[in-house]
Amino acid sequence: MVSSYFKNLLLKLGLPEERLEILEGKGALAEDEFEGIRYVRFRDSARNFRRGTVVFETGEAVLGFPHIKRVVQLENGIRRVFKNKPFYVEEKVDGYNVRVVKVNDKILAITRGGFLCPFTTERIEDFVNFDFFKDYPNLVLVGEMAGPESPYLVEGPPYVKKDIEFFLFDIQEKGSGRSLPVEERYRLAEEYGIPQVERFGLYDSSKVGELKELIERLSEEKREGIVMKSPDMKRIAKYVTPYANINDIKIGSHIFFDLPHGYFMQRIKRLAFYLAENHVKGEEFENYAKALGIALLRPFVESIHEVANGGEVDETFTVRVKNITTAHKMVTHFERLGVEIHIEDIEDLGNGYWGITFKRVYPDATREIRELWNGLAFVD
Amino acid sequence: MVSSYFKNLLLKLGLPEERLEILEGKGALAEDEFEGIRYVRFRDSARNFRRGTVVFETGEAVLGFPHIKRVVQLENGIRRVFKNKPFYVEEKVDGYNVRVVKVNDKILAITRGGFLCPFTTERIEDFVNFDFFKDYPNLVLVGEMAGPESPYLVEGPPYVKKDIEFFLFDIQEKGSGRSLPVEERYRLAEEYGIPQVERFGLYDSSKVGELKELIERLSEEKREGIVMKSPDMKRIAKYVTPYANINDIKIGSHIFFDLPHGYFMQRIKRLAFYLAENHVKGEEFENYAKALGIALLRPFVESIHEVANGGEVDETFTVRVKNITTAHKMVTHFERLGVEIHIEDIEDLGNGYWGITFKRVYPDATREIRELWNGLAFVD
Repeated sequence: MVSSYFKNLLLKLGLPEERLEILEGKGALAEDEFEGIRYVRFRDSARNFRRGTVVFETGEAVLGFPHIKRVVQLENGIRRVFKNKPFYVEEKVDGYNVRVVKVNDKILAITRGGFLCPFTTERIEDFVNFDFFKDYPNLVLVGEMAGPESPYLVEGPPYVKKDIEFFLFDIQEKGSGRSLPVEERYRLAEEYGIPQVERFGLYDSSKVGELKELIERLSEEKREGIVMKSPDMKRIAKYVTPYANINDIKIGSHIFFDLPHGYFMQRIKRLAFYLAENHVKGEEFENYAKALGIALLRPFVESIHEVANGGEVDETFTVRVKNITTAHKMVTHFERLGVEIHIEDIEDLGNGYWGITFKRVYPDATREIRELWNGLAFVD
Repeated sequence: MVSSYFKNLLLKLGLPEERLEILEGKGALAEDEFEGIRYVRFRDSARNFRRGTVVFETGEAVLGFPHIKRVVQLENGIRRVFKNKPFYVEEKVDGYNVRVVKVNDKILAITRGGFLCPFTTERIEDFVNFDFFKDYPNLVLVGEMAGPESPYLVEGPPYVKKDIEFFLFDIQEKGSGRSLPVEERYRLAEEYGIPQVERFGLYDSSKVGELKELIERLSEEKREGIVMKSPDMKRIAKYVTPYANINDIKIGSHIFFDLPHGYFMQRIKRLAFYLAENHVKGEEFENYAKALGIALLRPFVESIHEVANGGEVDETFTVRVKNITTAHKMVTHFERLGVEIHIEDIEDLGNGYWGITFKRVYPDATREIRELWNGLAFVD
């Protein structure tokens, strides 16, 4: 339920009363507090208030980050989305999406779902020059947090060797959620020294061959893919590498029963379209097929053995924090997400950092494997 | 809607009035006519009237064939289902399920969903000795129709080299749906020369090693699996070979978008449990993984190329009939199932048989591939 203060605020921001009631009715508005700042989080979309939108008590609204459309046939996708117009190509970094924003003199990091993340909020000062917000308090820095030591993902991109890093890929206005044009973002990021995703420059549909070579290279380098953006940011499309499709399946297979079937099937589909578009044949085709099969089966079979031997399905991950309290706040944060997590180890890394090791348990996946392993007879 | 004649009949057979109304309300009862005999088909279950039940105007009810429970861990599954008690093991034949029954002096073949199949009804006399029904008009022969020339499946078991065959695996009473004990079925089938599924004899949980060897052999011979049955038919469980899991995926991948995700994911799950239970490692593991990957990708990529080149996703199959009208009735029958099918070729095979070639078109799968190939940008 939302307090009358926020109800009035949302109405003032243009949310029609009947939409507000519908959202309330389905529990799609969550009011909460983070370090003394109250806010409302949208669990669902209504009008321009996209899912993941956060409205602060100050009246400032940070709109949910929109879903970027995907193409699985690169050449035709580019023609269809961009026609003959040029577009910028940037790396799609494999991390988690954060919106960084200044509210009441505090710099806050919001995850995709509209949660204020204690970890990211603590660490963001290590990556972003806060002078930016002095000059542009009305802008939101949108980027990917990625690296081997992440609270949300078990792997990061190959070029982040330790810890985690921030990669800017969008700057939006508070309230409207409108993106700055690409060149303006590039200029601001350079001016303030804000780290950005790798930029591959301007392409158009006549350069599909070069773009396919780029995809080949990114895939060999174990990178996730590209995002293509018209200079005005009105048209955006993403395309992922075959490496990323198979690697995602490998990561997911470990917790097979915790993921929807679509997680695996969508990636198999994308891989099949890659193979079809690029006429991959013979030994190369078989190598992809084998890699896919191993990705689907090996971590899954390992999890079955783990459970058969009395263990459970879990994932271990490490993050670096400056305050141990941040680690405890993350446990509370995960509990709110319905995730079971334990601190396994705390290590003094020196220089004011602590290495925290968490273990995330997957009770549903564990139970499902245990039942089947124990010989459950079931109708499917 | 169901006529008052059938409503009264269903009430007399013990279907409570409120259940009848619920079934009617959701359109779960379909009244139809086949060769002059009227019947009602249950699209849904209610009490003992299982989905696929057919009630004829004569008052005779042929209950829907129940779903047989599956185990994916053979050893523990056997212990859990059969404890230390013995059970018969029979081959699980890869075909389509039919119930053969005598009504008004006609022998009719009913498919799993409760449809009277014109093809199977025409051909059943080639496989079943009808004297059986003279002596046992109250019994239903349940079996698998399987072979390379089937209207419902693109492949059959390796030992049926041409046409199609019937394999008995159950005999049930009309009305109650109760199965005869295993030995009684074996005896009756032998007495009347009714072809049966292969029988592997009596096992118990102490013979799991032998059963695993049987699974290995069946898998090498490209056969589907086994069904285990307590002598009184009260406890039944099935287990399929790794070959069948991969081969089903290969067949499904051709029409990828026409199948639910679960079709593929269930089979990957079964394969993973097979590999885990049997500690398959090293090169053997990799061979399974590669076969799985190829099964998922190759037919799917071929379908993408087919559509990219202006074609469509389709399957061609052939059946043998004695009357060309039966082929036309099959087209009508498929139309009622919502399936688009065309007769491609009719060939005189001699000896009173016609070879009919059908083409089944998958418009949804074709459209989905075409959209994606044409560069559709989508949110997933």
